[in-house]
Amino acid sequence: PVFLCSSIQADDPLPSWNETSPKHRLIQYVKDSTTEGESFIPVEERIAVFDNDGTLWPENPLPFQLIFAIDEIRRLAPSHPEWKEDKLVQAVLKGDVKTLKESGRKGLGKLLAMTHTGITTVEFETRVQNWLKTAKHPRFDRPYNELGYQPMLELLAYLRANGFQTWIVSGGGVDFMRVWTEEAYGIPRNQIVGSVGKTHFEMRDGTPVLIKDPEIDFVDDKAGKPVAIHRQIGRRPRGAFGNSDGDYEMLQWTTIGHAPSIGLIVHHTDADREYAYDKAPKSSGKLIKGLEDAAKRNWIVVDMKKDWKRVFSAE
Amino acid sequence: PVFLCSSIQADDPLPSWNETSPKHRLIQYVKDSTTEGESFIPVEERIAVFDNDGTLWPENPLPFQLIFAIDEIRRLAPSHPEWKEDKLVQAVLKGDVKTLKESGRKGLGKLLAMTHTGITTVEFETRVQNWLKTAKHPRFDRPYNELGYQPMLELLAYLRANGFQTWIVSGGGVDFMRVWTEEAYGIPRNQIVGSVGKTHFEMRDGTPVLIKDPEIDFVDDKAGKPVAIHRQIGRRPRGAFGNSDGDYEMLQWTTIGHAPSIGLIVHHTDADREYAYDKAPKSSGKLIKGLEDAAKRNWIVVDMKKDWKRVFSAE
Ligand SMILES: [Ca+2]
Ligand SMILES: [Ca+2]
Repeated sequence: PVFLCSSIQADDPLPSWNETSPKHRLIQYVKDSTTEGESFIPVEERIAVFDNDGTLWPENPLPFQLIFAIDEIRRLAPSHPEWKEDKLVQAVLKGDVKTLKESGRKGLGKLLAMTHTGITTVEFETRVQNWLKTAKHPRFDRPYNELGYQPMLELLAYLRANGFQTWIVSGGGVDFMRVWTEEAYGIPRNQIVGSVGKTHFEMRDGTPVLIKDPEIDFVDDKAGKPVAIHRQIGRRPRGAFGNSDGDYEMLQWTTIGHAPSIGLIVHHTDADREYAYDKAPKSSGKLIKGLEDAAKRNWIVVDMKKDWKRVFSAE
Repeated sequence: PVFLCSSIQADDPLPSWNETSPKHRLIQYVKDSTTEGESFIPVEERIAVFDNDGTLWPENPLPFQLIFAIDEIRRLAPSHPEWKEDKLVQAVLKGDVKTLKESGRKGLGKLLAMTHTGITTVEFETRVQNWLKTAKHPRFDRPYNELGYQPMLELLAYLRANGFQTWIVSGGGVDFMRVWTEEAYGIPRNQIVGSVGKTHFEMRDGTPVLIKDPEIDFVDDKAGKPVAIHRQIGRRPRGAFGNSDGDYEMLQWTTIGHAPSIGLIVHHTDADREYAYDKAPKSSGKLIKGLEDAAKRNWIVVDMKKDWKRVFSAE
């Protein structure tokens, strides 16, 4: 009967996960955390931190924030005649990926500065919103903010239903993320830890504004992640979820000498449904140390192909 | 009858405020914010930010974090023979306030560095806890964390009972504050915005630690306050509460062109029960611009002597 089916479904907090070890360990962890006993975690300490790119949504063919920057360069180019002489802009306009990739971190930083700064925080937010309304992922043909991994969305909701605070701790920009994280992930604007550009306050025509400046204030990656977690959250998390060696220190900080806790790495093994990469082929997130140490540290490694029943929500 | 009395008390959310304009305006603001209509504020936007020194607790005879640093110098001096040659340390040990004051910001920074850095975040927290257990305010003879202003504690609770998030946005150090804010103010560790020293992550004997470094990362004062509010909270607050011109930009950011909102300045007018200062005599918090602009901006100015029935909780 229909009643019974929906009742069974409701009993499974992680329906998009296969019945393999990661799902069972996650459920056991939540049960232990919320049951009186050795592994109980007081509510105020139920802090779970999630990397974003490659952990909650894809990071290919390029990190989505970079795709936003590229789309913005295209949109803005007609009103910036001075960009005509700029090799990097020309590479963007021609879709010359090779030149873009060769420009490395410096080129990337320049594209971000050109599209993320010199405007108010309000104007920036409007631009991200407008982009999300029209841009679509080249392969999956859906708006970027609808590409959250369904199994991870279920995990976020499951943790919250059990008293956990869910935080993003990402190398991405805070101002870029918080435009859409509430709706996409159920994560409020003040639970986003990320990279931060300098801003300054000024009165403009009698109204206060914050202007986004080109200087980088903080890069939230690798050993920066525990530092930023300390600054904004002020507690060691009890759960850390990542996908690359950029999350290695966050996993260490969360789990080593800090029981009860859980660490999890999403391993991209599914070229058919998503992408497959770790130490190779080259991707935004490289995963070497995390895989090597996972067994020793008792971190869960999710084999996307084997452990996830589906990757994205049904269309 | 006892029943009636306690019932009347329970109906008054701000019993330590006199029946003067500030109290009435605060209650009206909360009623309007939570009632459908022009001045209704959706729950997710009910953000109230509070300066700490001079707003939630005193800042005299010196800001309490500085008193902590001085007490720590005294405690640590016997095990630091190299400090014997140090003029500033000698001034501390002799109680030579004149030399300390003359050393200015640079001397102050040095005292903070000597007592706040080179240790793990865990060790620092233990030291603050130990200090709070033994140190007492020279005039009020009570532990520092029991010197929250009773009217402000009531206001914090009243706002929270009406769906507001209460945040500290202080020039004080985040690591110093979050040790005691939960118990003293009901403000959790992740709702503290403040000044921040650099820290770095390392593995020490196989265990992850964060070490507090001497460099200052961010000073949360004046135009820095809106910047830090944006970074950590990600919304313009709907209420700002301060006591000095260090809060001026935070008051602007919260209230100008941003109705409905409220701004409030605690004016220290009560030398008998607490302290009296604004532009003079010299104190940690100077208040000039705020008083000049309060009428134009419709900011509430609390006259501590006139508007507060009592200053501290009953002993
Ligand atoms: Ca990642
Ligand atoms: Ca103050």
